[in-house]
Amino acid sequence: MIRNITEDTTFDAVILADGDFPTNAIPLGILNKANYLVCCDGAGAKAIEHGIMPTAVVGDGDSLPQSVREMLGERLYIVNEQDYNDLTKATRFVLANIPGAKNIAYLATTGKREDHTLGNISLMPFYKEEFDIIPTLITDHGSFSVACGKQKYESFEGQQVSIFNLSCSLLSGIGFRWQPYAYKMLWQGTLNEAVGNEVDIDGDGTYMVFRTYQRKINE
Amino acid sequence: MIRNITEDTTFDAVILADGDFPTNAIPLGILNKANYLVCCDGAGAKAIEHGIMPTAVVGDGDSLPQSVREMLGERLYIVNEQDYNDLTKATRFVLANIPGAKNIAYLATTGKREDHTLGNISLMPFYKEEFDIIPTLITDHGSFSVACGKQKYESFEGQQVSIFNLSCSLLSGIGFRWQPYAYKMLWQGTLNEAVGNEVDIDGDGTYMVFRTYQRKINE
Repeated sequence: MIRNITEDTTFDAVILADGDFPTNAIPLGILNKANYLVCCDGAGAKAIEHGIMPTAVVGDGDSLPQSVREMLGERLYIVNEQDYNDLTKATRFVLANIPGAKNIAYLATTGKREDHTLGNISLMPFYKEEFDIIPTLITDHGSFSVACGKQKYESFEGQQVSIFNLSCSLLSGIGFRWQPYAYKMLWQGTLNEAVGNEVDIDGDGTYMVFRTYQRKINE
Repeated sequence: MIRNITEDTTFDAVILADGDFPTNAIPLGILNKANYLVCCDGAGAKAIEHGIMPTAVVGDGDSLPQSVREMLGERLYIVNEQDYNDLTKATRFVLANIPGAKNIAYLATTGKREDHTLGNISLMPFYKEEFDIIPTLITDHGSFSVACGKQKYESFEGQQVSIFNLSCSLLSGIGFRWQPYAYKMLWQGTLNEAVGNEVDIDGDGTYMVFRTYQRKINE
């Protein structure tokens, strides 16, 4: 069962990217309580601004002012290669330094440029496959998780749950307002919601699930 | 040649969704100069708040206060069916009311829930295919356009250009810092940039292109 994400959810490591800094209590709680926090380059300066000293800052260092570089000292790991972006460098750093790390939270991966948002979300299934980890991308509105096969998710009545089918030719679900199927396009699996305390999904490939923190509200 | 988007770019119609209201001068310019503006439900109230009277507001009307409904009068078109979301209802409204409309701008489709952001972006290639239009999704940071086959794009040195391959098995490009190819994953085509005033892309299927308004800046 994949639990709902709360501010007390714990992870083996938390990675802070350089998108919009979280404002919601849930990602902020996860950030503040992180035992092991790796920041992508410029995000290191933002963490320090918010009173949080990262375990490490990984990147090319270009986005960091000299004062922050000095404050970080040995916590700054310059990685100059161009084949991977900063999010992947940070993930590789976690895996190299916490053997067996599985549950990794990704914060501040969205906001700002939408092409980066799209790229970062699409890195989650890649990390699951490539690094055999359980990545959770956590935003101010909800969380994305990746799964293959059968999976149970904690939910609540009225929780907005979107399914993004990546490689399933068969997909079904229990506990949804509208019956899920093997969507051909990403928009088709949005606008669904949980009717109770659990939703079950079964797919013959990989899919992503987005769950909101709150019931739908008309703003 | 697909021109860079500026605040003076004109469209047959502008659709305003209910995501984050634009703050950048380019989408605001397009919104303010729109001859034909259709708002998705709650976005109608926001347009009026910003001093813009929409041509029409389309949706189930749930998100609109009574005062706005009265102000809109016959400009409010209630569409209750559940098969299409508000963005698609608005698009169908434009096509029914402006015969031959081709160039449609989509504003305020991102921000807030990231599952909706993802869904809205993925609707662009669907609209191109289904409605034979040229959709442009315009955010505070850049614009997404959809193409098949060969296409030329106006660019400038240092412009960040991301390619999202949707169905190409062959894809190539000219004028890029790094050589594009038929990316298998969405993140692979991000982080590229133009080296001059034009980039050319050739793909044997559909792809999306995101172009920023500005050179890369380290924030």
